[in-house]
Amino acid sequence: MHDEHVTTKRPNIVFVFFDNLGYGELGVYGGGIVRGAPTPRIDALAAEGMRLTNMNMEAQCTPSRSAAMTGRIPLRSGTTTIPVPGQPDGLVTWERTIAEVLKDAGYATAHFGKWHLGHAPERHPNARGFDEWWGLLGTHDTSLWEDASGYDASVVPADELWEGTAGSASTSLGDYGTEQRRFFDEEVFARTEDFVRRSVAADTPFFAYLPTAFPHFPTLPHPDFVGASGNGDFADAFVELDHRVGALLDLLDELSIADETVVVVTSDNGAEDVLPWRGWTGPWAGSYFTAMEGSLRVPFIVRWPGHVAEGTVSNEICHAVDLLTTLASLAGAEVPADRPIDGVDLVPFLTGTSSKSGRESVLCFVGDKLHAVKWRDWKLHLIWQEYMLDPAVQLGVPRLFNLLEDPRERNDVFLPWNTWVRRPVLAAMADFWDSTEEHPLIATGTSDPYAPPSG
Amino acid sequence: MHDEHVTTKRPNIVFVFFDNLGYGELGVYGGGIVRGAPTPRIDALAAEGMRLTNMNMEAQCTPSRSAAMTGRIPLRSGTTTIPVPGQPDGLVTWERTIAEVLKDAGYATAHFGKWHLGHAPERHPNARGFDEWWGLLGTHDTSLWEDASGYDASVVPADELWEGTAGSASTSLGDYGTEQRRFFDEEVFARTEDFVRRSVAADTPFFAYLPTAFPHFPTLPHPDFVGASGNGDFADAFVELDHRVGALLDLLDELSIADETVVVVTSDNGAEDVLPWRGWTGPWAGSYFTAMEGSLRVPFIVRWPGHVAEGTVSNEICHAVDLLTTLASLAGAEVPADRPIDGVDLVPFLTGTSSKSGRESVLCFVGDKLHAVKWRDWKLHLIWQEYMLDPAVQLGVPRLFNLLEDPRERNDVFLPWNTWVRRPVLAAMADFWDSTEEHPLIATGTSDPYAPPSG
Repeated sequence: MHDEHVTTKRPNIVFVFFDNLGYGELGVYGGGIVRGAPTPRIDALAAEGMRLTNMNMEAQCTPSRSAAMTGRIPLRSGTTTIPVPGQPDGLVTWERTIAEVLKDAGYATAHFGKWHLGHAPERHPNARGFDEWWGLLGTHDTSLWEDASGYDASVVPADELWEGTAGSASTSLGDYGTEQRRFFDEEVFARTEDFVRRSVAADTPFFAYLPTAFPHFPTLPHPDFVGASGNGDFADAFVELDHRVGALLDLLDELSIADETVVVVTSDNGAEDVLPWRGWTGPWAGSYFTAMEGSLRVPFIVRWPGHVAEGTVSNEICHAVDLLTTLASLAGAEVPADRPIDGVDLVPFLTGTSSKSGRESVLCFVGDKLHAVKWRDWKLHLIWQEYMLDPAVQLGVPRLFNLLEDPRERNDVFLPWNTWVRRPVLAAMADFWDSTEEHPLIATGTSDPYAPPSG
Repeated sequence: MHDEHVTTKRPNIVFVFFDNLGYGELGVYGGGIVRGAPTPRIDALAAEGMRLTNMNMEAQCTPSRSAAMTGRIPLRSGTTTIPVPGQPDGLVTWERTIAEVLKDAGYATAHFGKWHLGHAPERHPNARGFDEWWGLLGTHDTSLWEDASGYDASVVPADELWEGTAGSASTSLGDYGTEQRRFFDEEVFARTEDFVRRSVAADTPFFAYLPTAFPHFPTLPHPDFVGASGNGDFADAFVELDHRVGALLDLLDELSIADETVVVVTSDNGAEDVLPWRGWTGPWAGSYFTAMEGSLRVPFIVRWPGHVAEGTVSNEICHAVDLLTTLASLAGAEVPADRPIDGVDLVPFLTGTSSKSGRESVLCFVGDKLHAVKWRDWKLHLIWQEYMLDPAVQLGVPRLFNLLEDPRERNDVFLPWNTWVRRPVLAAMADFWDSTEEHPLIATGTSDPYAPPSG
């Protein structure tokens, strides 16, 4: 028997972090059958918990992961873009990850999937708070290289799959190609099941972090699911992932831990945009790698029976950085006090103690440039870019949109009425920049060991 | 007591036909709180019935109403655009309306709202099968004229509100301005309540047709709802209409006729696009008055307790013309046999006897031009126009989209693989054009009496 008080205070955490899953893809967000594949298990999960319609991520994989892991705006951490070859990438070891925070609080921690926060051994997941890990240090597009005409592996070697445990070096499991891509998520969920069973057997609260491949290009389903939808690879992959999430939920039921497990399902940024595996932003404009809503808004579902009210939906503004703060709060763990933490604790909001998220603004960086700022229902663009492959244009006069009235960001309403919105936007920017005076930005490419300037 | 058999065979029909309600606006379609106003009553209605994600209307008010009323592609009827001043407008009296069909089957019939299918007295709703009517012959934008600088009512008189009963001439109730616009839907629903109560008291099955003003520009809420959402006129109007629909549903409960009443809620075309009352197409591209999905796809909810399964959603392709056929089928009434009827009977599909709608294609006319053809999950554009105010461009090579893979119609996939899709598209076009040889198109502006050429 678990002690009721302890399990209530320290729930298990399952964090499914889809990769480039657009806001519109899941059935409960307007996709599903409209995209050729129903997602009944994830839709049911949403009905059993809370669903957000204004959860904002960063515009790309690496900064979103950085934000979620550290609770800090990625510009602070030098993790504003996917890695630049030839220099140290990812998080300096001085950063504190949610895995470290939860591990220190007594959690068993595991990472199965794509890391994208550092290739150096001291930055691997098993060196950053995860007891164990399996997956990729980089990302999935590299799996296509082996099939690319003219590719020369002697010049650019293939990416590899890795596994590792805390205290030991990670070991390579061999090259990562399209065949491995097909089996990636099967492995993510299989290893998760094993980890969950072991954690429950050990009576240890656990944090299972599943940064899946799905639906990052190439969106290749497992062979068992090829043809499952009748609507091609992309839809087949949805059938697969809905099944895998469902099986994981079934496991929680089988182990009688569903009530003491917080399940979070979200995505690291807006929809995949690369043909022929292009995803769908649903109702939002633009693509990932921009500051359009189609880049930032992602599906976000959280289930915690008895704590998060069933079937609730909120348009309160939230952000990736809130994940560290919130997961730490769930676990009763301490967030670092010696550095700026940008996240707010969403627990009062998610559990219904407050109807407000506690957040009113989001700084929308693309790389190291501040493209836009969201404040309440407004969004002010300073740099305009709709799609990843468009040029980014510095605006002479900012463009302002009311996202309730104009969710597609079509009709600039800055002039003549709404110049007042600059004030709260500037205040949000100033809060951030002011904090960087005492706590300077860590430059991209910074080597370990990093230490902040002494105060 | 009603005879159980008869009431099952001949349900009452409530048909709420919103005006320019975008696919994305209602909560259950991804809007609601995202647009600043929840729509709990309509969302609940959807949960109690079936919801379609691929219901297609015509691109404008008049042709959609024509299609729904007659079951015929509007090009057949000369009703392809909103009326052109200076010539007879609307449906020739030779056309058979759903109201005539249902009235002949013993239904009490009423029209409260906007007709837009003929200004001549012999074409008024009370001359076209409706026992009674109230509302507008034209449309709502005319209400703005009185507030327009330079408007001269001696040159162009204001539109009027009318009411009438079958067998008598309609009478004017005076000018229609923005003040009347605010009260329009209150009157629509109040008169509907009265009509429903009278019909139930008379033990007569009824057809209540509610072509509302909501949310057609100017989207001015009733004074009771100004400020209701805190998010402006447009959102306030949503609060109002959700309330009014809810009150109508409550009336059905109060009268114990909910189980024997089919409630249909849909829209005549895609979202309002006129600023500052611009609506939202949700996930779809383009605006009304085009052949983009944002023009054609509309919310469609049908509730018929015990007959239509609760909480079902389908992406089967359906079209405005199917409404006549379907409502006639529900009532056990005969559709005209002496003319082409383009609608299919959706009753087997809606009641779950068939998982298929029976329709595989939609001809997407804009005015009298065929802009595109939908066939299964494909859409072939012959003329390209994204927004109402864009020029329409005749394409040299058609553009093809797979709507499951590319719902936003961004990535033309006609070449190189998919030229085969032309065949079924051409077949659908040929079916239509072939039928016009025996049954010629009725030219726009045709006067009554019209009679088809003798065979």
